[in-house]
Amino acid sequence: MKELDCIFNAKSVAVIGASRTPGKLGYEILKNIIDANYSGKLYPVNPKADEILGLKAYKSVTEIPEPVDLAVIVIPARFVPDTVRECGKKGIRGIVVISGGFGEVGNKELEDDLVKAVKEYGIRMIGPNCQGINNPKIGLNASWPMIKAPGVISIASQSGTFFATLQMWAKDDNVGVSKCAALGNKLDVDFDDLVEYYGADPDTKVIAIYMEGVRNGKRFVDAARKVTKNKPVIVLKGGRTELGARAVASHTRSLAGKDQIFDAAFIRSRIIRVQDLEELYDTAKAFATLPIPKGNRLLIVTSSGGSGILATDEASERGLDVPLPSESLVNILKEKVPDYVILRNPLDLTGNAYSELYQIVLSEALKTDEYDAVVAIFGDPISGAADLIGSIVKQSTIPIAIVYLGGGDVQFEEKKKFESMGIPVYPTAERAVRALANMVKYSQLITKKQ
Amino acid sequence: MKELDCIFNAKSVAVIGASRTPGKLGYEILKNIIDANYSGKLYPVNPKADEILGLKAYKSVTEIPEPVDLAVIVIPARFVPDTVRECGKKGIRGIVVISGGFGEVGNKELEDDLVKAVKEYGIRMIGPNCQGINNPKIGLNASWPMIKAPGVISIASQSGTFFATLQMWAKDDNVGVSKCAALGNKLDVDFDDLVEYYGADPDTKVIAIYMEGVRNGKRFVDAARKVTKNKPVIVLKGGRTELGARAVASHTRSLAGKDQIFDAAFIRSRIIRVQDLEELYDTAKAFATLPIPKGNRLLIVTSSGGSGILATDEASERGLDVPLPSESLVNILKEKVPDYVILRNPLDLTGNAYSELYQIVLSEALKTDEYDAVVAIFGDPISGAADLIGSIVKQSTIPIAIVYLGGGDVQFEEKKKFESMGIPVYPTAERAVRALANMVKYSQLITKKQ
Repeated sequence: MKELDCIFNAKSVAVIGASRTPGKLGYEILKNIIDANYSGKLYPVNPKADEILGLKAYKSVTEIPEPVDLAVIVIPARFVPDTVRECGKKGIRGIVVISGGFGEVGNKELEDDLVKAVKEYGIRMIGPNCQGINNPKIGLNASWPMIKAPGVISIASQSGTFFATLQMWAKDDNVGVSKCAALGNKLDVDFDDLVEYYGADPDTKVIAIYMEGVRNGKRFVDAARKVTKNKPVIVLKGGRTELGARAVASHTRSLAGKDQIFDAAFIRSRIIRVQDLEELYDTAKAFATLPIPKGNRLLIVTSSGGSGILATDEASERGLDVPLPSESLVNILKEKVPDYVILRNPLDLTGNAYSELYQIVLSEALKTDEYDAVVAIFGDPISGAADLIGSIVKQSTIPIAIVYLGGGDVQFEEKKKFESMGIPVYPTAERAVRALANMVKYSQLITKKQ
Repeated sequence: MKELDCIFNAKSVAVIGASRTPGKLGYEILKNIIDANYSGKLYPVNPKADEILGLKAYKSVTEIPEPVDLAVIVIPARFVPDTVRECGKKGIRGIVVISGGFGEVGNKELEDDLVKAVKEYGIRMIGPNCQGINNPKIGLNASWPMIKAPGVISIASQSGTFFATLQMWAKDDNVGVSKCAALGNKLDVDFDDLVEYYGADPDTKVIAIYMEGVRNGKRFVDAARKVTKNKPVIVLKGGRTELGARAVASHTRSLAGKDQIFDAAFIRSRIIRVQDLEELYDTAKAFATLPIPKGNRLLIVTSSGGSGILATDEASERGLDVPLPSESLVNILKEKVPDYVILRNPLDLTGNAYSELYQIVLSEALKTDEYDAVVAIFGDPISGAADLIGSIVKQSTIPIAIVYLGGGDVQFEEKKKFESMGIPVYPTAERAVRALANMVKYSQLITKKQ
């Protein structure tokens, strides 16, 4: 069993500070674990309750008659260190401290005592001052809001809001998540631990990180370098400007450090660095669902000339090539598609496009070795696309990113259909191309000798 | 009556090529005009029908017994020029040619004949090869999909898909649109005409443009320069890279031209240039609903430290200042907010934030003259925000952009509430800050002596 399995794959969980009052965190967290159908054993701990949400409550962890893997702590900060010691005595190996009130508000002494308690018992801790963890596969939703959406994206975030936002987006798109952690003050478990753990996790295909700083840069680079050989790690780094770094200091008191140092470390670790939250998510979604491209040659198939152009601009600025189809491919397609199709790149099916055209064009293009990635843009109410294209996308050995826009009700239906097949749909061509370009960058980083 | 009123404010419309077959454009367009509750008179024209969708049909426009302002033409290209001549004889002043099959497929001769017909009768024409027009205020939805959402954003787009997408987004966000046109091959009405017309339109507060090229650069600059003194014009230009320009040539055969020339022309016209479709929409949405900032000092109020940091990074890179609150403001706030609030900028209300805190902080900050714009970020399920903050945002003389993320069901509810009050909500801090930064840029452009 991996060290952090005591947290993410806990077979039994105590919620210390469980509450009977809706709205209180100690209530919401317990309720979310129940509602997520947690597959393990669940013990509310509250000295003043006999029963909470239908479960027998215990005065303290030590009263729980069976062994406990994980304690989720939601009590006032001043009681946390001693409670952690009780957990240690009980043999608990993992804790998640939701409670705030430590270093982030200047309580350095309390923070030191908490670290001491954790070290004393060899416990691994996430937090304090964090939004918890989630592993939807076993229903361990020890956080908020409730997210039941098992998938292959694992998340490590120094922001609770981004931890929640990324999960919500992944749920809405039917992509889902594997393991998620909001790190808070990260007094013990840090990004290096999570990258290692997620790296070895068979349910994790891609790792998405929001980072403000790392405690031990060298250890992080070493951990990431090992993992990125086989699994992409995408990082959004807060505090890349001077003013942003000042904001980081007030938030998690991380040392944002010189941005160039992070840049260099990320390149050395083969990490994909992104610029905003949507790019972090869009890129993770692509890695979660599409094969990794082997080169940088992009084919743009579109019914929207404008989207084709913006896709080309974006591709060009992001280092992708947009080569014209070969004479032989053009000749094959000429036989099979109407005259109005513009057999260039973007391959513009025009406003007269219908689903079968995409099917023909994609099938033929995929038989050649001319392209490493495709973006297929549906710019209009084009129905039947998912039924006709879905299996092509699923079977393709090169990534095909789907974009749907301007299609009214039809768009809504097709998007849902594609997503139910595990095929991601992007709201604009630019966002799809950015995600594909990040995949190409990863492909280049891992094949480069370093 | 302004010249293009015969198109956008037509009191009577003939749909030439109206069809009884669902799915056909001549059916969909007629149906959309009916379903949008068009306030004028509507005449289907189809030589083979007596009645379409419950309306008496006419064999030709000349048979219509009353005067007609606008003809929407959806018939095969080869018949269009002569039909336009019939329209001219009937005294029709405006036409929208949806039909394609002209210059874009190499039919230069037919195109020349169409232009000749239009000139002969002094008709103003939008198109050909376009997705039509929409004026939701009078229900003139001569396009697709159906968009009933009157507002103050006017759109001119060389892409039908973007014309539709921007309207769909504006409808979904309850922001709405004023006049919308998809220009297609723009053989007659070009961006200069629309900018002039929208500029003089009292229902238009902001003009959003997707452009691939202009026929007469000088005329466009002159027209835009006059309008931008009083009304913002935002332009997304397709074909900014060499490969993108090649794609423009295959799409609308516009001369994309050297990008630097457009850049210089936009600066001279005080045009706000944006980089992607979402930035175009986000910026238009801000101008549609918020007052224009007088300077570049941004206050970031947040419950999400991470979002505050990304907002700061984005602001800093976009030329905004993020100054710390004055000592006096800090002292006032200290009396009124809990100790955990970080009285800096970002002003971090932390994960313990509740709606009343935003109310207090915004009220006090707005009493000072320390900030020119505010972004208020709700990063968690914070309820009651719209009820408490809505009136502050509506009454504020400086723009307050609302961001909601990571808030589960609560977010969904609050977003709807804000939007029902005409207050735009952004999905990430970065997108809100980009929109505000574009407003600041406009403010700087119009106050600068040129």
